Amino acid sequence: MRLAIYGYGNLGRGAEAAILKSPDAELVGVFTRRDPNSVQTRTGAKVFAADEILRFRDEIDAVILCGGSATDLPALTPMLAKDFNVIDSFDTHANIPAHFDAVDAAAKAGGKLALISCGWDPGMFSLNRLYASAILPDGRDYTFWGRGVSQGHSDAIRRIPGVLDARQYTVPIKEALEAVRSGKQPELSAREKHLRECYVVAAPNADRAAIEQAIKTMPNYFADYDTTVTFISAEEMREKHGALPHGGFVIRTGKTGLSGEHTHRIEYSLALDSNPEFTAGVLVAFARALCRMASRGATGCLTVFDIAPADLSPLSREALRRTML
Amino acid sequence: MRLAIYGYGNLGRGAEAAILKSPDAELVGVFTRRDPNSVQTRTGAKVFAADEILRFRDEIDAVILCGGSATDLPALTPMLAKDFNVIDSFDTHANIPAHFDAVDAAAKAGGKLALISCGWDPGMFSLNRLYASAILPDGRDYTFWGRGVSQGHSDAIRRIPGVLDARQYTVPIKEALEAVRSGKQPELSAREKHLRECYVVAAPNADRAAIEQAIKTMPNYFADYDTTVTFISAEEMREKHGALPHGGFVIRTGKTGLSGEHTHRIEYSLALDSNPEFTAGVLVAFARALCRMASRGATGCLTVFDIAPADLSPLSREALRRTML
Repeated sequence: MRLAIYGYGNLGRGAEAAILKSPDAELVGVFTRRDPNSVQTRTGAKVFAADEILRFRDEIDAVILCGGSATDLPALTPMLAKDFNVIDSFDTHANIPAHFDAVDAAAKAGGKLALISCGWDPGMFSLNRLYASAILPDGRDYTFWGRGVSQGHSDAIRRIPGVLDARQYTVPIKEALEAVRSGKQPELSAREKHLRECYVVAAPNADRAAIEQAIKTMPNYFADYDTTVTFISAEEMREKHGALPHGGFVIRTGKTGLSGEHTHRIEYSLALDSNPEFTAGVLVAFARALCRMASRGATGCLTVFDIAPADLSPLSREALRRTML
Repeated sequence: MRLAIYGYGNLGRGAEAAILKSPDAELVGVFTRRDPNSVQTRTGAKVFAADEILRFRDEIDAVILCGGSATDLPALTPMLAKDFNVIDSFDTHANIPAHFDAVDAAAKAGGKLALISCGWDPGMFSLNRLYASAILPDGRDYTFWGRGVSQGHSDAIRRIPGVLDARQYTVPIKEALEAVRSGKQPELSAREKHLRECYVVAAPNADRAAIEQAIKTMPNYFADYDTTVTFISAEEMREKHGALPHGGFVIRTGKTGLSGEHTHRIEYSLALDSNPEFTAGVLVAFARALCRMASRGATGCLTVFDIAPADLSPLSREALRRTML
């Protein structure tokens, strides 16, 4: 499959590495809205201006969109879906139905196939919520995130006056995890499920007490959580907080038997050194399915729920049955 | 969907309970090779003689086959696949390709759809091996089973002279699990991965030392494992070992980045109070997909790898995107 990367931030760089590891994938090029001459790829892959992409209409089997969900993808994915098979990792859960409709209409108009919201949440975590709820209908599922860096929360802190840099870790609370695993199906508030750990580099003369107060009372982001704020130096930030680890847990417990006499637990967890590189691995696997389904004539918009798992693997169905079933 | 249960042991009884919990499923009846008058169902479901099933050709959307993999399913699944959409939990991994071919030929001849080897291993564990290997191609996966009752190993002990009853628990070894989770990708022997715990009721005058020796040296079943043998009374067996718990772990660790600089771990685990009732829950969810795909005209044999997850849920695709993605 001949893939293109559109957008070259952390996720685009992850996709470049993931394509290199896929024996059946070839990288046509990286498309950027920056000056292509200013972009140096990790593998020496060619860089093109974003608005040149239509020239490559017949040379690209699928475009991996590596933009942000806030402003990039809502415009980009429908725009490109008219001319290319596209895949994105749109992750604003509440806006997925609207994004789906826009992409579906564009892809159908162009006779192309699209797959949205593909990563680990939404993505692999969603799949696990679906499988578990179908198998154990009389049950309840819980999703925990972390320990890992939340880019959105880190950005929110950086916007506070006097903050030079910040990194926020979302941390699942052990007692909540254990209560869920016990099968008791507890009601848990936001505060009971996750802690928020903040590391902040403040400007030399900044009012640290005011910064800490501004973080801890910030609505939606921090006010509903127990939040710790630690001021550190720029060096410490570079040395200890340069990576982008993440992960989490999807746990469903449920009952079976005529009177619910048996309890079961299904747990899926991820522990990731690099959130963008792992997400890129998911994107490349699903791009394989996208290309196969497009070659069978499918059009419109799909999600991970619509993909038969066999289409994700470079192995044949016969080999999968023999080696993995 | 109108379902039938063929075979009424532990799995058939689990399927009966699982169908009761599925709002979109109706149980047409239980088909047994025993005298139907001797079988009392848990819910009062009707019982018919197995050879009457062809009379119900137009009233059954799918048959859930609840026989054993050793002798029942290799004959039954191809036989019934000529006249019905069928699903089984055939679990002799090495014979899956041959079973698939036989069922595929029969289903195609009859214009029916079949799904084999559907449970948790093969089944949900297989799916997790596939997803994880597609996402992290540069990695390695490990499957651990237990703590849980192995019926095959329990039966093997019961065949030893002087043994009245036996229960064997397969127990994953913690140190092996931790070594795998660390990302080190260790080489592990059978003995290093699992312990075998045996509880045995001996006949009054039996030679216990000889029984213990016979168990511990039994080829394939026990000789390659550290095995403990504990003699207990028939009462203790009834009181403490009457349940059929099981579960296990599928763990894949892998590397990403240009030089493999980042490590990731994907872990899926099950902790089940009742192995047959959980397996029945998997079968009913996949029977839903089977009925939907058959109504779209699909024929032949499938496995869990061929099923788009959305087809497992009673919810519409639109509702799934809105609530689970």
